[in-house]
Amino acid sequence: MRAAIFRGPRAIEVGDRPEPVIQAPTDAVVRVVLACVCGSDLWYYRGDSQHAVGSIGHEFIGVVEDTGAEVATVSAGDLVVAPFIFSDMTCPHCRNGSTISCPSGGNFGDGTVDGGQGQYVRVPLAGSTLVPVPGSGHSDETLRSLLALSDVMSTGHHAAAVAGVSKGDTVAVVGDGAVGLSAVLAAHRLGAERVIALSRHPQRQALARSFGATDIVSERGDEAIEAVRSLTGGIGVDAALECVGTDQSIETAFAVARPGSTVGIVGVPHGEVPFTQTFFRNVGFRGGPAPARLYIPELMDDVLAGTINPGLVFDYDTDLDHTQDAYAAMDERRATKSLIRVSSV
Amino acid sequence: MRAAIFRGPRAIEVGDRPEPVIQAPTDAVVRVVLACVCGSDLWYYRGDSQHAVGSIGHEFIGVVEDTGAEVATVSAGDLVVAPFIFSDMTCPHCRNGSTISCPSGGNFGDGTVDGGQGQYVRVPLAGSTLVPVPGSGHSDETLRSLLALSDVMSTGHHAAAVAGVSKGDTVAVVGDGAVGLSAVLAAHRLGAERVIALSRHPQRQALARSFGATDIVSERGDEAIEAVRSLTGGIGVDAALECVGTDQSIETAFAVARPGSTVGIVGVPHGEVPFTQTFFRNVGFRGGPAPARLYIPELMDDVLAGTINPGLVFDYDTDLDHTQDAYAAMDERRATKSLIRVSSV
Repeated sequence: MRAAIFRGPRAIEVGDRPEPVIQAPTDAVVRVVLACVCGSDLWYYRGDSQHAVGSIGHEFIGVVEDTGAEVATVSAGDLVVAPFIFSDMTCPHCRNGSTISCPSGGNFGDGTVDGGQGQYVRVPLAGSTLVPVPGSGHSDETLRSLLALSDVMSTGHHAAAVAGVSKGDTVAVVGDGAVGLSAVLAAHRLGAERVIALSRHPQRQALARSFGATDIVSERGDEAIEAVRSLTGGIGVDAALECVGTDQSIETAFAVARPGSTVGIVGVPHGEVPFTQTFFRNVGFRGGPAPARLYIPELMDDVLAGTINPGLVFDYDTDLDHTQDAYAAMDERRATKSLIRVSSV
Repeated sequence: MRAAIFRGPRAIEVGDRPEPVIQAPTDAVVRVVLACVCGSDLWYYRGDSQHAVGSIGHEFIGVVEDTGAEVATVSAGDLVVAPFIFSDMTCPHCRNGSTISCPSGGNFGDGTVDGGQGQYVRVPLAGSTLVPVPGSGHSDETLRSLLALSDVMSTGHHAAAVAGVSKGDTVAVVGDGAVGLSAVLAAHRLGAERVIALSRHPQRQALARSFGATDIVSERGDEAIEAVRSLTGGIGVDAALECVGTDQSIETAFAVARPGSTVGIVGVPHGEVPFTQTFFRNVGFRGGPAPARLYIPELMDDVLAGTINPGLVFDYDTDLDHTQDAYAAMDERRATKSLIRVSSV
């Protein structure tokens, strides 16, 4: 089959990989319909993190082609959303809601396991991993939003969920990448009355507003902190959602969080928590990779009902043969998030 | 009046301070019955933290002597518990549950505001700060437990509350000082099925067991981590309560916390959060100084009902004239926590 192959930094080649077949009775083979590029894929592309030569990509939706004998929850012909990791949903960690820590689970597109950026994926633990999409004849807009549930929207939701966003809250979202924009949508969806988006790009500001942002702060660093404090009467926000992971964004998130609140962190941290400064304000943090499998069903209900449209984060479309372009567009900041069309439903 | 006066490291002198009088209509004057020494007082005693020359001590119970015109909730003759800070309970921070951040609030025994280690205290914002104790003729045992609510038991409860301890949980408590022992009691009170106390002192182990600890781990560092993991089948605990604040204790707490859980931190941190190591396990933290005023009523109900006896953490008694001894006993680890008898109810 045709699939993106990571050859090294800035070398995403589309070539031939073995067409997957059922290997275990818990496997399914999925024909990929839509895939996309994650912000974390860019670390490998840029050479900032190591990645094995081979398969890549962990976000996709597709149609089930074949299932192993023990897969009972999905069958051939089903349109499915894949969360960005596979997991068994029965181990203690999965039962505790931490699918990322499932000892039987693993990552798609890690060089060996098939990646989403390819024609087909063998999905291990398919019955507990894939979420079937009810109905048929979904619009392209709906399909794009379903793809967003695979990672980016679930991750934005995770930031809001672990920070305890609830009805009437004032929330600040630090970061206007695809995850930050998704976090704006998630906070709005959870009932936040006021959502302050930190963004300096006019196009992203507009999308943030369409996702429910009530205020935009275009400053950065100390000026952004001052602006959010001013917007909240000096109190700070009920929840700060950190969707970047740099020193500055982490510092900003902790500084704008009001005493007693929790910072939701989903930007993989490259900075330090300003621990002693936050202790005396009772500001904590929670977060990490999202348990997307747990969130997809409820988010899918809203996508299918048309109440959320997280697929709007995709602003660059291409096809599998141009996967390298999909990376380059994000790397050069011409795209917020690149979508890759692989096949038709 | 007679009161402890902080003169400098290892110099707690009992001398004369001006007898307090009502200065504002929101003040009350309280005659101190019982006071005690906090672990944080020891930092000043040891010269590890700065403290102004003057009043000291922030934990006390006493009898109201006089009240300002605007104090409606307590009156002369009432036995009251004072939380370790005063606060107005009406500002946004207090309404959010962060009394420590009340802009009108402040600390007892900071050198200027009267301290609990003295005969009388002028309590600012008395109506919103002091909690009257119902009934009369309370036993000495009950009075000691009421004193514990002023700080140490409320702080232990805070660790358990912010970590989200709930019925059936497995909890680890790092630290067997008075706060750690109180956290054991708090976790047990909140319904934890299993409470693992990290303690190497036989006497404290025994108290931890009487407070509800089901398991004792006497190892430290990596061996303690291994022991807790082993006790939990390799999963880790649903909540780790960090009641020390050193590098090692913080690392231990984060390491034994299961994926997806929250570390409750009440030991004033002198170490760093192992941030990037915890992110991929979705382990967060919450905590800081306890909003004792919010917790005292519910804890007091249990003290008066006889279901908890947090006063058992006091294992050294003395009187006001011997306040320096109370400090020395804790400094030399002859005492877990020192109680100072000031007057009779």
